This record gives sequence, C-alpha cells and structure tokens, in this order.
Amino acid sequence: METLSTSRAYGGTQGVYRHASEATGTDMIFSVFVPPHEKGQTLPVLWYLSGLTCTHANVTDKGEYRRSCAEAGIVFVAPDTSPRGEGVPDDPAGAYDFGQGAGFYLDATEAPFATNYRMWRYVTEELPMSVGAAFPVDMARQGITGHSMGGHGALTIGLTLPDRFRSISAFAPIVAPSQVPWGQKALGGYLGEDRAAWRRHDAVALIEDGARVAELLVDQGDADQFLAEQLRPELLQDACAEAAIDLTLRIQPGYDHSYHFISTFMADHVRWHAERLRR
Amino acid sequence: METLSTSRAYGGTQGVYRHASEATGTDMIFSVFVPPHEKGQTLPVLWYLSGLTCTHANVTDKGEYRRSCAEAGIVFVAPDTSPRGEGVPDDPAGAYDFGQGAGFYLDATEAPFATNYRMWRYVTEELPMSVGAAFPVDMARQGITGHSMGGHGALTIGLTLPDRFRSISAFAPIVAPSQVPWGQKALGGYLGEDRAAWRRHDAVALIEDGARVAELLVDQGDADQFLAEQLRPELLQDACAEAAIDLTLRIQPGYDHSYHFISTFMADHVRWHAERLRR
Repeated sequence: METLSTSRAYGGTQGVYRHASEATGTDMIFSVFVPPHEKGQTLPVLWYLSGLTCTHANVTDKGEYRRSCAEAGIVFVAPDTSPRGEGVPDDPAGAYDFGQGAGFYLDATEAPFATNYRMWRYVTEELPMSVGAAFPVDMARQGITGHSMGGHGALTIGLTLPDRFRSISAFAPIVAPSQVPWGQKALGGYLGEDRAAWRRHDAVALIEDGARVAELLVDQGDADQFLAEQLRPELLQDACAEAAIDLTLRIQPGYDHSYHFISTFMADHVRWHAERLRR
Repeated sequence: METLSTSRAYGGTQGVYRHASEATGTDMIFSVFVPPHEKGQTLPVLWYLSGLTCTHANVTDKGEYRRSCAEAGIVFVAPDTSPRGEGVPDDPAGAYDFGQGAGFYLDATEAPFATNYRMWRYVTEELPMSVGAAFPVDMARQGITGHSMGGHGALTIGLTLPDRFRSISAFAPIVAPSQVPWGQKALGGYLGEDRAAWRRHDAVALIEDGARVAELLVDQGDADQFLAEQLRPELLQDACAEAAIDLTLRIQPGYDHSYHFISTFMADHVRWHAERLRR
C-alpha cells in the first residue's frame, strides 16, 4: 500500500492511498480519515460508497465528514467506484452511467467486464483486509453508507452481510436498480439478461427475497433531479413496511442530488452510525 | 449577474454567479452562501480571499464554512483570485505564482498587467456593489478573511479600510510580501521596482507606516511547507507588538498549507467574526 498524501485534519489524519487489487486486476485508490485517538486504541469504521462518475476524491473533498467523525471517534473509508485504466473496458459510447466510474458494487459475469469489474469482492473482501491491517480499526464495529449508486451499494452489501454491518444508511440511494434505467443498463451489462441474477444486487428485491436488518436510515432531497425516474424511495418504503424493517426515510425539502445535500446531512449519519457502533 | 448554479445547503443557498467586471475587463465568477434567514432580514457578510492557483471553487468545495455560517447567520462570499481568459496576460513562464490565479489583490500599474489586474478595485468596490445589490447583506457589518495570498489580501484590505471591516482574520497569510520570494516577484511584476509603492500592499509595512486595527486572528500550521520562506508570521507578530495591535496568532501543530488546515479552523474563524459582527 502506497501513501499518496496525508494531512492533519480535525486533530486526525486524512490520507489517500493506492494498492494493487487482485479483485480488479488494477491499482485502486481510496481515502481513509483516522480521527484523534489514543495509541493502541481501535475505532469503529464507516464505509462510504460513492455515486456515478465519482472517485474517492469527491466525498473526501466535499463530504464534510471529518468534524463529526473526529467528534464520534469513527474511521471513515472511501473507495473508488470502479476499476480504471487504459486496459479496463468502458462504456462503448463513453456514457457516464456504465463502465469506469460506474461499477455498481457487483462482480460482473459478462464479457468483457467480468475480468476487472469485481467491485463486490473488492469492497467486501480485499479492501477490508487492507484497511484492517493498516489502520486502527475494530472490524467488529462496522457501518456502511453511500450516495446514489453508492447508496445502492451500501444497502445491498449491508442487507447481504447483516452480521458484519451493525448500521446501514444511504443518501439518495438507487433502491431498486432492476426497476429503473440506470440499474437496468448496469445490471444487464454486467450480469446479463437473466433477471434472476439481478436480485442479489437490488435492495428492494433482496428484502422481498427475505433479507432482514433491524433498521435503515435514508435521506432524500425532494428537489433531486433523479428522484422520480432513478431513485424511487417509495419502493424501499413499501418493501421495508412489508418486511417490518424500521426505515427512517427523511424527505429533505429543497435539496438536490449534489454534495451540498450530502454534506448538510453527513453529521446526522455519522452520529447515527456512531450510536450503533458503540461497544 | 448570471446565476451559474444554486443548491440548498444547511438550510440556506450556496450559489455560484458570473458578472462582467469593469475593473478587470473580464467576466468574473464568485460564490455566495446565504444562510437561512427571515424574509427581509439582512445579515453580516464575511469575505474570503483565496490563495495562489485557486478560484472561488476551492473554498466553496473544501472550506466547510456552511455549517458555521448557517449557525451564526453569516453570508459568505468567495471571489476569484485574478482576471482570467485568453486575452489576459499571464506569467511569461507559466508559473503558478504570478498572473492568472495570482492577482495578489492589488491594482497593477505595470504593462501589460495594468489593464486587467485590478483586483483591489474589484474586491473593494465593484464586487461589494454587486453583492450588496443582489443579496440580503448588511454592509455595515463586514468581516474579511483569506488564505495565504488571500490572507495577504484580507490583512492589507482590512488594515487599509478599518472603518469598513469590523473583523479581520487570516489562515497562513503572506504577512510581508516585500520580504519574501512570492511577494517580491508579484509586487515587482505588478507595481514595478519602486519599493515605496509596495508598502500599501504589505501588511507589515502598512502597520509600520501607521495602519491600526484593534485586533487580528491568524492561524498558521507548523507543518506548512511555506512557513519559513514565504509566510513568516513572526514578522507580523513583531509589527503588531510594536503597534499595540492585539494579534491572536495560533500555531497549529502538525497542520500543513492545505484546505484540511483551513476547514479544521474555519468554524473558529466564522464564530470569531460573528461575535464581532453582531449589531
């Protein structure tokens, strides 16, 4: 693991790191904020999965998570959203919603994507191994969150691994990719046209198929340009009601899909996770 | 004035705007955060001047000022650091520390810079007229701050116009440009080799020449790579001691010159200004 940069921030350290990923066959960059802590102490960790077109840098620059993570004593990790590089296949038309910057947190099975697009394995296995080995984290206390495509990732990963993640939240998530254009393009392109294979990567379908967690926190702006066509939080609301999952869905008036929305409510999410990640 | 973008943030509105500047002869972009407020209410305004290579966007993305400005009821304005565009003369060698992105908040007198590089007039006259006309600001309650080259701007403008600015602070400012390489290059290039003309754009020289304010707040990281050669806060400390100006100079251990330093201490500065800008 190579350190690309570190800076003191809010009494802790914001770093950016690169490592060679076996899962994706590429170098991957991620950021980690370690808050101030006692020597030898280990801390809960909050994973943040980013949205379409993003790298680790968007939330690291604009997410405004460091103050609340410093106050709560939470390590914050932000991976990239896909493999990248010249040899990595991309959207044939160069679209922003598939290929590089749009990995959808799954392991692709379709050629030519299956070789590199293994973000599920990367985010759930390889990166946690690297972070656990190099940073003062208590892997018994993990939470997960994300934005938009990363909200989809947080929900599907959290619902699939409920014993690992004590707390799951999302900002403006894609809750039912099988039912919306972004998701249909991605799931079809990465997993093929057999829709049975899509259900493990669709939060609403996972819940319909029996996945259970105690509670979820979701914030959604009502001025979000993607709300009606791509995000559709009412589908998650219905599935959670049916499954007796305690969903707190907060519709935030006037907020859009940008990091101004995320940063405004970031501290609420960090504190919500922190309460659930105490020993 | 053209609105380039607005987003709801922390209950207020973060906007980015463009207008044609008579001072610089170019279009200029700036950002304004207006916190939540009652209809008809006017609010104090804090001007933030950015450092070398920056535009309005750096602090808007990474400054983390919105939460504290929303809490304190402060409008936050971030101008660009120079005129820009194809017809605007630049550093002959393309260096980062002169020309576009490096206006040093003065009105150039040397050819070919004198036509466009009129950032003093832009920041002290033209932009305040535009902001005062378009936003709910109380121009009787203004504070000014900035980073590095923008800290130089905040100090020189604040010391020159003490009746306008009730509060002046800076992050890692260039306090004595006449005595350091960045400043000598800029003042020589924009104002010529007569060093008498430089003194109005040098905070330490201004104080030596009789400029007086009650107090100043300066934060400076001790891991700042530019500290010893370019910033030299001890020169400001000496000048303030001699002039009986109450300087609070906080040396912050481990902090560098980046926005991680600025964002960590931004809330302190916003609150400090807010206390001094109450009616």
